[in-house]
Amino acid sequence: MKVMAPTTKMYEKIEFTWPAGFYSDGLHAGLKHEKLDMGWLYSAVPATAAGVYTTNQFKAAPTTITQQLIKENHQLQALVLNSAIANSCTGEEGFQNAAKTQALAAAALNIDPSLIGIASTGLIGAQLPMDKIAAGIAQLQLTKNDKVTKAVLTTDTKAKTITVQLHLNGQVVTISGFCKGSGMIHPNMCTMLGFITTDAAISHEALQTLLSDQTESTFNQITVDGDTSTNDMVVTLANGLADNLEIQTDTKDYDKFASAFHAVMAYLAQHIAGDGEGATKLVEVNVAHAATTKEAQQVAKAIVGSNLVKSAIFGKDPNWGRIVAAIGQTQAKVDVAHLSVWLNQLPLVEDSHAAATPEAKLAASMGKKTIQIDVDLNAGLANGQAWGCDLTYNYVKINASYHT
Amino acid sequence: MKVMAPTTKMYEKIEFTWPAGFYSDGLHAGLKHEKLDMGWLYSAVPATAAGVYTTNQFKAAPTTITQQLIKENHQLQALVLNSAIANSCTGEEGFQNAAKTQALAAAALNIDPSLIGIASTGLIGAQLPMDKIAAGIAQLQLTKNDKVTKAVLTTDTKAKTITVQLHLNGQVVTISGFCKGSGMIHPNMCTMLGFITTDAAISHEALQTLLSDQTESTFNQITVDGDTSTNDMVVTLANGLADNLEIQTDTKDYDKFASAFHAVMAYLAQHIAGDGEGATKLVEVNVAHAATTKEAQQVAKAIVGSNLVKSAIFGKDPNWGRIVAAIGQTQAKVDVAHLSVWLNQLPLVEDSHAAATPEAKLAASMGKKTIQIDVDLNAGLANGQAWGCDLTYNYVKINASYHT
Repeated sequence: MKVMAPTTKMYEKIEFTWPAGFYSDGLHAGLKHEKLDMGWLYSAVPATAAGVYTTNQFKAAPTTITQQLIKENHQLQALVLNSAIANSCTGEEGFQNAAKTQALAAAALNIDPSLIGIASTGLIGAQLPMDKIAAGIAQLQLTKNDKVTKAVLTTDTKAKTITVQLHLNGQVVTISGFCKGSGMIHPNMCTMLGFITTDAAISHEALQTLLSDQTESTFNQITVDGDTSTNDMVVTLANGLADNLEIQTDTKDYDKFASAFHAVMAYLAQHIAGDGEGATKLVEVNVAHAATTKEAQQVAKAIVGSNLVKSAIFGKDPNWGRIVAAIGQTQAKVDVAHLSVWLNQLPLVEDSHAAATPEAKLAASMGKKTIQIDVDLNAGLANGQAWGCDLTYNYVKINASYHT
Repeated sequence: MKVMAPTTKMYEKIEFTWPAGFYSDGLHAGLKHEKLDMGWLYSAVPATAAGVYTTNQFKAAPTTITQQLIKENHQLQALVLNSAIANSCTGEEGFQNAAKTQALAAAALNIDPSLIGIASTGLIGAQLPMDKIAAGIAQLQLTKNDKVTKAVLTTDTKAKTITVQLHLNGQVVTISGFCKGSGMIHPNMCTMLGFITTDAAISHEALQTLLSDQTESTFNQITVDGDTSTNDMVVTLANGLADNLEIQTDTKDYDKFASAFHAVMAYLAQHIAGDGEGATKLVEVNVAHAATTKEAQQVAKAIVGSNLVKSAIFGKDPNWGRIVAAIGQTQAKVDVAHLSVWLNQLPLVEDSHAAATPEAKLAASMGKKTIQIDVDLNAGLANGQAWGCDLTYNYVKINASYHT
């Protein structure tokens, strides 16, 4: 019953590199003590843009502005990013500061402000120090370095980047993604941000459809504490410089590109989950034979979202009762007499009873860095996945000792 | 805007005592190492019964059997209770053991098995040791002691009991409640159990309506980790020995009794939340000016359910950004420009911005044992409450070090 979703294994994962025509830079503007805290992304030509955004009712100023721009113009040529301060719950002044940031970057890049998106991540309720932002923008250059992938980090322990390439009508197409944090796990730092650049030529409709569809099965399927931030955003820019025929929906090229794009999305989502605050393990849940994909995803998310399952995984305890309880909490259709669960491919639950796998063997497998839980609901033909991490002392420590 | 729900302050909370005609006992049957682990409750006459049960799809055998009995007969005369083993996910053998427990108690009490309900709490997936259960039932007596209120405990740190009295047409009516754990917080121990006995005369319809309605605003409004167990159950027995005129719905007596009953329900719910695993603080959230009661309760529960809010409270951090983010995650109607939040009655958020209360004053108030968060959504006229506790190292320790 093992569920297999497209993974980067299907693609040659090459060293991170920017697609044709994309330039970037990052620096320390002084928002953080010493780390990189600001950067930008620039495309030599206006790029087709698509985005998905937080569903939180308290949407931050930069998120609102970028969403509006992409909705109206379907394109962007640059993105200005900062960490440390989320510019969320900052009222009218927050919107003015976001607009001022746009204007400063527009002047520096000599393009229209309406081609510049903004993304911020950090503390809620604090205003941006515009003098530092202005000084930072004045210093940013157009390079091929990857500093911007570090400049967006907050409590992340590492940058999360990936580049894959594919061929479309004879042309090499490059897709490069990077992201930070997780809206579910850093709401104090307030944001999961994801950026995917590609030199593919693709229509806005196709790009938006692709991003929206795949977000459901990737970024929306990671959870740590169920908290959704006010700044969550994934933006993708496609500048067409690969010179492939423009990709439209419902074509062979679309499917081919979608598969590579999904590999990038899934890779980034998994690495956010695995780098969760205080996490010692990545937890991957695959649900098979659900009545619908939505229910499969709902069940998978309920399992990775359960504090008790997460605590048990931290404690290396193959506690199947908690997994069954988490599944039963959902309204998803499930054959309550014939539920099966596998732990790292070892039978854990069979027909809703404890499986025969020896306790010692299960306990040993809990030592792995990645815990894979496969579930068979025996209720249909749909599959779904979710990713999360364990709940540790460090999670509590980080979030209890962080002070506003 | 402070929301006030009925509390036990409205009633003389007297020392725990059983209502007229109720007897009980508890003992150590050997399911636990040394603590009391089994007991029963008995009414001199068959009592009108009502119950509310877990919504978990994997419903334990005793829960299913008791729910069925009350649904069919509207009455019970006894309840047999045990802790340590939940008799959940135990298949056909589990049902047979539950039925055997009924039969043994029926013989000992010389009443029909259909008058005997069962409730178990403890580990999922383990079978009841019927020899110990049989030996225990053989020793149980009919006393006025409160041992049964201790026999149902698992990781609870204390018994949770309350007795209130009121007058109905000249008669003294007594309502006594006790409970253990929290379905949201002990799914490994698997159960929140609540039992409310009264000598009031009340119709089954009135009693069930009362219990169902008030569960929504009490037990269903406590959360710690969002996990719902497979054994959750609250059962109430009313034996009529107070000789009041039988209470019917939509009467003055109903309202009077309902108010006292709510005081008992709310008291028990709050004490479960405050005794959460690893908890150092009780968190009470009152939401005012919501569009609907359901939305007010939804928002209150989102706040007490947020791991980040809970971690901040453990860290004594008045982190209002996390509270705002938790509210914004819900789909409840909220005036995003005019949200107000109070922390222990101190202004924390005003018009969705930080309020003027000095940081030091807020920090000091975080030292309190009970943290009260009042929220004004400025979106309607409905109120709602929820109770929870902080997320601590001990919660993770208890649930990571507990091994199946």
